[in-house]
Amino acid sequence: MEKFKITFYPDNKTIEVEKGKNILSAAISAGVYINSSCGGDGVCGRCKVILKKGQVITQPTGRISLDERKKGFYLACLTTIQSDLDVEVPSESRLDLEKLSPEEIDLRLKGLYSESEEVEPPESILGEEIFVHSPLATKLYLELPPPDLEDKISDLERLYRQIRRIQDIPIMQTGLSNIRRLGELLRASDWKITLTLGKRNGTTELVLIEPGNTSHKNFGLAFDIGTTTISGQLVDLNTKKVLGTKATYNKQASFGSDIITRIIYAQEQDGLEKLHHAVIDGMNQMIQELIHEHNIDLNDVNCILCAGNTTMVHLLLRVDPTYIRRQPYVPVANFVPTIRASEAGIKINPRGLLSCVPGISSYVGGDVTAGVLSCGLDSTEDLSILIDIGTNGEIVLGNRDFLISASASAGPAFEGSGVSCGMRSSRGAIQKVKITPGDFQVTYNTIGTSTALSADGERSRTIGEAKPHGICGSGYIDIIAQVLRAGLLDKNGKIKMLKHRRIRDGEYGREFVLAFKEETDSTSDIVITEVDIENIKRAKAAIYSATAALVKYMALDFSKIKKIFIAGGFGTCIDTDNAISIGLLPDLDRSKFIFVGNSSLAGARAILLSYEAMKQANEIAKKITYFELSVEPGYMDEYMAALFFPHTDLSKFPSTKEGRL
Amino acid sequence: MEKFKITFYPDNKTIEVEKGKNILSAAISAGVYINSSCGGDGVCGRCKVILKKGQVITQPTGRISLDERKKGFYLACLTTIQSDLDVEVPSESRLDLEKLSPEEIDLRLKGLYSESEEVEPPESILGEEIFVHSPLATKLYLELPPPDLEDKISDLERLYRQIRRIQDIPIMQTGLSNIRRLGELLRASDWKITLTLGKRNGTTELVLIEPGNTSHKNFGLAFDIGTTTISGQLVDLNTKKVLGTKATYNKQASFGSDIITRIIYAQEQDGLEKLHHAVIDGMNQMIQELIHEHNIDLNDVNCILCAGNTTMVHLLLRVDPTYIRRQPYVPVANFVPTIRASEAGIKINPRGLLSCVPGISSYVGGDVTAGVLSCGLDSTEDLSILIDIGTNGEIVLGNRDFLISASASAGPAFEGSGVSCGMRSSRGAIQKVKITPGDFQVTYNTIGTSTALSADGERSRTIGEAKPHGICGSGYIDIIAQVLRAGLLDKNGKIKMLKHRRIRDGEYGREFVLAFKEETDSTSDIVITEVDIENIKRAKAAIYSATAALVKYMALDFSKIKKIFIAGGFGTCIDTDNAISIGLLPDLDRSKFIFVGNSSLAGARAILLSYEAMKQANEIAKKITYFELSVEPGYMDEYMAALFFPHTDLSKFPSTKEGRL
Repeated sequence: MEKFKITFYPDNKTIEVEKGKNILSAAISAGVYINSSCGGDGVCGRCKVILKKGQVITQPTGRISLDERKKGFYLACLTTIQSDLDVEVPSESRLDLEKLSPEEIDLRLKGLYSESEEVEPPESILGEEIFVHSPLATKLYLELPPPDLEDKISDLERLYRQIRRIQDIPIMQTGLSNIRRLGELLRASDWKITLTLGKRNGTTELVLIEPGNTSHKNFGLAFDIGTTTISGQLVDLNTKKVLGTKATYNKQASFGSDIITRIIYAQEQDGLEKLHHAVIDGMNQMIQELIHEHNIDLNDVNCILCAGNTTMVHLLLRVDPTYIRRQPYVPVANFVPTIRASEAGIKINPRGLLSCVPGISSYVGGDVTAGVLSCGLDSTEDLSILIDIGTNGEIVLGNRDFLISASASAGPAFEGSGVSCGMRSSRGAIQKVKITPGDFQVTYNTIGTSTALSADGERSRTIGEAKPHGICGSGYIDIIAQVLRAGLLDKNGKIKMLKHRRIRDGEYGREFVLAFKEETDSTSDIVITEVDIENIKRAKAAIYSATAALVKYMALDFSKIKKIFIAGGFGTCIDTDNAISIGLLPDLDRSKFIFVGNSSLAGARAILLSYEAMKQANEIAKKITYFELSVEPGYMDEYMAALFFPHTDLSKFPSTKEGRL
Repeated sequence: MEKFKITFYPDNKTIEVEKGKNILSAAISAGVYINSSCGGDGVCGRCKVILKKGQVITQPTGRISLDERKKGFYLACLTTIQSDLDVEVPSESRLDLEKLSPEEIDLRLKGLYSESEEVEPPESILGEEIFVHSPLATKLYLELPPPDLEDKISDLERLYRQIRRIQDIPIMQTGLSNIRRLGELLRASDWKITLTLGKRNGTTELVLIEPGNTSHKNFGLAFDIGTTTISGQLVDLNTKKVLGTKATYNKQASFGSDIITRIIYAQEQDGLEKLHHAVIDGMNQMIQELIHEHNIDLNDVNCILCAGNTTMVHLLLRVDPTYIRRQPYVPVANFVPTIRASEAGIKINPRGLLSCVPGISSYVGGDVTAGVLSCGLDSTEDLSILIDIGTNGEIVLGNRDFLISASASAGPAFEGSGVSCGMRSSRGAIQKVKITPGDFQVTYNTIGTSTALSADGERSRTIGEAKPHGICGSGYIDIIAQVLRAGLLDKNGKIKMLKHRRIRDGEYGREFVLAFKEETDSTSDIVITEVDIENIKRAKAAIYSATAALVKYMALDFSKIKKIFIAGGFGTCIDTDNAISIGLLPDLDRSKFIFVGNSSLAGARAILLSYEAMKQANEIAKKITYFELSVEPGYMDEYMAALFFPHTDLSKFPSTKEGRL
């Protein structure tokens, strides 16, 4: 088979591939991660590349404009290699160079609490504060009495004896490699050593033995592995202090933006391997950066605690996720034993441990368990709801007596996928929008600008550096709420045809222009189309109706709910009123809504720092019932009724009826 | 550095080594194992090789006779390589070709019970018979209910649930590799699978998952790893049936015949690695032969249980034994955790387990624990003594209330080392001897002959195939007892000078000729010298005085002892009367002596087959006190008093005093 060399710029990475392979798969093999929502089906139009040199064969697509075609743009997934190529990956198509800015990390991690209400997050959101400090890995400095003729027990028994004088550890495990080093090490260190003890599946493992006192160097990492974003925190396990936090895109997005596309991709040759490497590459890179910035030796990182949805955990561990999407939708494992991180390809101390928060089902994973833990849903008598809006929407209802969960197939619209100008909440994303009724003046705020808003006559403009590039989830909620309020949109989501420069019929139906090309850094106007509105409507209907179905199934009504925790990166910048007016959230007292940001990461950190929290997480995962919406007779009706703005039954949304919104 | 090619014959193995390296170390690197008792110090004279071609530099040695020198004999350890060489390893210097004959295996394994007394071994010697059947690895065939919408727990939890419906297993461990295979395997096998469950340090490990019902294929091996001999048994773990037994020399003998020499060798470069490989090579070869002979797949061998002295266990696991011989003589571990056999380089199922019987101290190892278990010393009110005579002598005294042990530095004389015509009890060894008083006619029996004895006038001769080649331990006991009785030897061990063709002054002092060159397959007469007698005297004095010291220390006397178990390959062919007349064994009622053969292997097999036995072995190892003879004030006197035949104090040996012997 003929082979050609492809060089990707600006990475300057070259790879040799067989003739006829497509550019997207060549890029992945070269370690160049390119955006893709559809997993290479030519549908999403995100994997645009520019051909600088060479011959290709491509398929027709509406995703490349005539203008772009002239400039040499191609969809990487539809274009096969016919000669040596030079290919440029434009910034909008890149994944691996996209780092989240500090503002974005703030959004995703810290959580922005409802501005108007000034509600403090419950103490339990800080997780570790309420649990006894007993991290996944602890260090123990010991000065052993040296053996003499009166006390001749062996080195290993001497060690165990000393440990058991301090701690009650019935079952202790030690690997052969430690035993092999033990004799020399004990004597070379004058019987003064530091042990790293790890909690491992109901036993304690003597993970590591070091000479001298290194007990002050004990670090761990908590990770939230999302379908779209991976967030990690470096934690000092002794002081519980968070030393640093990072977030990055999940490079698996090259293989498709949603879980199902990735599961399908995993079945291809080397698919599972590639997905596995995409996630661990991102994590390893983040770990490297964190330890460099904080001047920490990788060998002092002794454990890692991961929360992720069930598919993400499977892919992290390189476990085939196939059966997650086959009836009856059963994962290989919800409770995954603690393993050595190196077994999963994660680079910390070679003997360091990796533990995953237990999940509940194929579509409600350990990230939800961690969220329930950090919000304390299970530890109060008050009925609460946790809504985690990520690439999917997961909902948990309950209190200390019961917990029930559902997964809403919201689709990735709120993450900016499947909508024409959608993007993730990253630099240049329109995230907050105001539209004045009557003249439809638009004021928007993009991520990466200063927070001041300004409107200047007919033309909107932004202060700060980032020109708009697209619209993120919270932007869509604002836009729809505003055009509804301005009377421009009917309850079905159809845009009224008015004579206005912002309203027009475009290639994908009627559309409203948010920002004209000149004011953007995009190659075209930033618009919202009726198709986009339809997609958002389905997404919000899925989440609302799933929440309502859970409440109904438990013979409750929303008035009984004391708190609604909104979690997820996207959730942190939602305007509550707007979310209620489009019918995404139920119309309740605004003080009940608590925006908790990344509750999954907070939970993972709590578990990393406390074995008690780990046990509680296990209890939560066992306790949560999974409610399968698709087999619930009333659910379809509930969903259909929610396919209006805000809802068919306006009595459920009194605020809008009363004109308060 | 210049390099040369050395080819060893008859193996026809070639290796390239640096100029100046000695032939012994080149042979080891080539995988050719050559006899050596002294570890390459040029002392023992066992590593004779014949130079066929090439240049060498050698050192003067009295171990090569003039005759041998003419034939091209060299000591491999004293001879360095100066050109390409062809070297022949004569049969008497070979280790790897020496296989134990069936008769020898019988000797070493089955035990020969005192012929005169016809005492049956106690039931507990059969170990497994008295313990509940619960092998180290069990197989469990399961038909799982497939998941459906009503029963959606994950694959791994489904497995655990089914196991726990059958067995009470609180802590269950599973490795990532099993989890990775699980989803596909369960479905491909229609939810009918066989699990291999292993007992592992207080937890249960799901070692293996196989499709279908393979529960009838579950095999394990018990090993006794002696300094000189390695014995192994293949056992059907379901039926408890012993399928086959093998014994082979421990190839570590190339590095020295005793433990101390090997510990010293382990400190040389790659020394530990070489010793480790020598033992596992032998074991792996034995395993291969056993499974071939019984038509068993290696993957169906799921576990292995090893008993060995503390140094042997260290070397098996490639753990540095250095500190065993440094004050205060502390091993790295007496209780070694169960590991995967592959971690120690043992080739059974790659995930199969390896467990070692716990030891007591540096010089009383797991082989003694196993012996105590199999003899049931700890389970009766009767006071008993176990004397295990191997390369060292280990003694345990006790009953259900206490157990105390000592190690007697008997040296390897009883194993045929350090005595001029000594050899191991293998083909051609003189093992039984009768000498008629007055005319000193010699009748002997060699291993490998038929058992009939015959004397023919002045010249002794053997019936059967094996001509005498040397003398083994039991032969030496017989000879000394007989020459004592014949009045040829005084109580100090000096040979009286009588005018007789069998008595003469040789190179190493006065000697008695057992067999003249013509009747042997040796290159010289087979003799016993005064130096040999001195060595045997020290060895027997060490064992007797250690036994006596233990009895005295416990404020007992020999009359209180109900049973004396004599264990060890060598112990099986001892003549009790002769052993008493030289003062090796105490002069007690002959019915008290029970020859149990390889009690260590019997104990290992019992533990392999029963977790209950394993727990009891742990209890025994914890319970046994180690009595350090060297620091006991009265011990030296005791030892000095035993340096006579039979003893300074003849009142301790009434049989000899009364002339009954």
